[in-house]
Amino acid sequence: MTTRHTPSCQVLNVRDNLMMIDCGEGAQLGVRRMRLKLMRLNHIFISHLHGDHCFGLPGLVSTMALLNRTNSLTIHTFKDGADLFSRMLDYFCRERPFEVRFNIIDTHRRVIHEDDAVTVTTFPLLHRVPAVGFIVAEKPKLRHIIGEEVKRLGIPHYAMNSLRQGQDWIAPDGTVVPNAQLTTPADPSISYAYCSDTKFSRRVIKSVEGVDWLYHEATYDDSLRIKAHKRYHATAREAATVAREAGVRQLILGHFSKRYSDESLLLDEARSVFPATRLANEGLVIDLNAL
Amino acid sequence: MTTRHTPSCQVLNVRDNLMMIDCGEGAQLGVRRMRLKLMRLNHIFISHLHGDHCFGLPGLVSTMALLNRTNSLTIHTFKDGADLFSRMLDYFCRERPFEVRFNIIDTHRRVIHEDDAVTVTTFPLLHRVPAVGFIVAEKPKLRHIIGEEVKRLGIPHYAMNSLRQGQDWIAPDGTVVPNAQLTTPADPSISYAYCSDTKFSRRVIKSVEGVDWLYHEATYDDSLRIKAHKRYHATAREAATVAREAGVRQLILGHFSKRYSDESLLLDEARSVFPATRLANEGLVIDLNAL
Repeated sequence: MTTRHTPSCQVLNVRDNLMMIDCGEGAQLGVRRMRLKLMRLNHIFISHLHGDHCFGLPGLVSTMALLNRTNSLTIHTFKDGADLFSRMLDYFCRERPFEVRFNIIDTHRRVIHEDDAVTVTTFPLLHRVPAVGFIVAEKPKLRHIIGEEVKRLGIPHYAMNSLRQGQDWIAPDGTVVPNAQLTTPADPSISYAYCSDTKFSRRVIKSVEGVDWLYHEATYDDSLRIKAHKRYHATAREAATVAREAGVRQLILGHFSKRYSDESLLLDEARSVFPATRLANEGLVIDLNAL
Repeated sequence: MTTRHTPSCQVLNVRDNLMMIDCGEGAQLGVRRMRLKLMRLNHIFISHLHGDHCFGLPGLVSTMALLNRTNSLTIHTFKDGADLFSRMLDYFCRERPFEVRFNIIDTHRRVIHEDDAVTVTTFPLLHRVPAVGFIVAEKPKLRHIIGEEVKRLGIPHYAMNSLRQGQDWIAPDGTVVPNAQLTTPADPSISYAYCSDTKFSRRVIKSVEGVDWLYHEATYDDSLRIKAHKRYHATAREAATVAREAGVRQLILGHFSKRYSDESLLLDEARSVFPATRLANEGLVIDLNAL
């Protein structure tokens, strides 16, 4: 924590369901300042057990406990984190009116959460302690009905769902109307990858290949490359290299060392490798559909 | 934690030694914003084990661990707090270069810390969980030497300390020079009492009798007196009543419910009972000698 930046915490909003990635100290304050609805936050994903990525958990859950929440909250974390934080919550939030579930993760690549809208997949990062990145990927969406055409052909309402899923229409007389005549393509499904904390690694590039959005730590600038490697952190140039090699569309840099009084140096360095780069900041909101 | 106020945390500076009372989430950020020297903070006193009074501990100690600190830190807290937080610190701050000691306190009135300058005494509060207030009292200070007079009488340097402690000077020829001729009175010793969280109680009045400064919680205004009692909190009027009956000199109100968008109502209510009242706020600095 510095006077300029608070510890790591991001919230993804997918169709009004909120997912939090990392929960550093003060996360509940950020969430409140941004007027996010805590009632809609049902999953928290912790990348690794360093304090600046998880010390906000007890406070956040305590605040949730004051809100008469009833739906369960799932915290996805390593076993040690589940042990430590379940003990804290059992003591400090004994009387919470909702269940907190811990989903124990490890450093393997696997789907750790899935619902109607998204899958969340872990992949290994390279840090001083066990650490994972997350890919939150929207599932394929439904195609859009061309209302006029469907009406003209008198296609019944019950068929709409299969049309939206891409099926052709077979009329009672056996005529086949191809789906492309009845629908327009679905909106694209967006994917978002989170990589913090980690040093530069080919394995990370491989893991995030082809995602739309990449958040990657850039603790240092490239003149401190040796220090970065030693401390298992990345430089802005390395983050941009991951973005370029993995073929992502947009890069967001974060987790800046407090040595930088402003991060334009890091931004410029990254943009020289990968132009579609921006800096994360407290309160930043990005529309992930705007690609 | 609200968007207007951060959780409880106060720091007393006595001759450049810092003592922290309560350590809510975000305490390390407040300390940094106020440019307080963490190296000079050696004692943390936790009034009770509710999250808004102690969730900042792991983050604060983690930050201390980055500063190459070597002097030990003592955390004064109930046994459950020592158990929970020592476990957290052993996991998250394994490699800290300094010792964290836990001094286990209970709800009895007793001196829990003493050094050259102050004593810190606990006394019971009335809250939903075991809770104590703290009185930080400066020890009597040394008198001021009247340089001219001492020089005129040729009193040797080695005698200065006993003069400052109030002893008379006995000259080699047996003449007694009364201390009052050689010194002026010591500066007053200031005492500060901290009462949060608690409901109104005669016992609390008795405990803080005659202190100079009283910090007292004022979660609600007096129209919510019943709610305050039920939740073991105090109203502004009750806090002011404690101040008046205990004969303190200055009252500071804090721990305001988030229902108040500004606390002038609480201030006015308290001042109608005890005029020398002010409101606590993030970043407030008070010179406790200015009475």
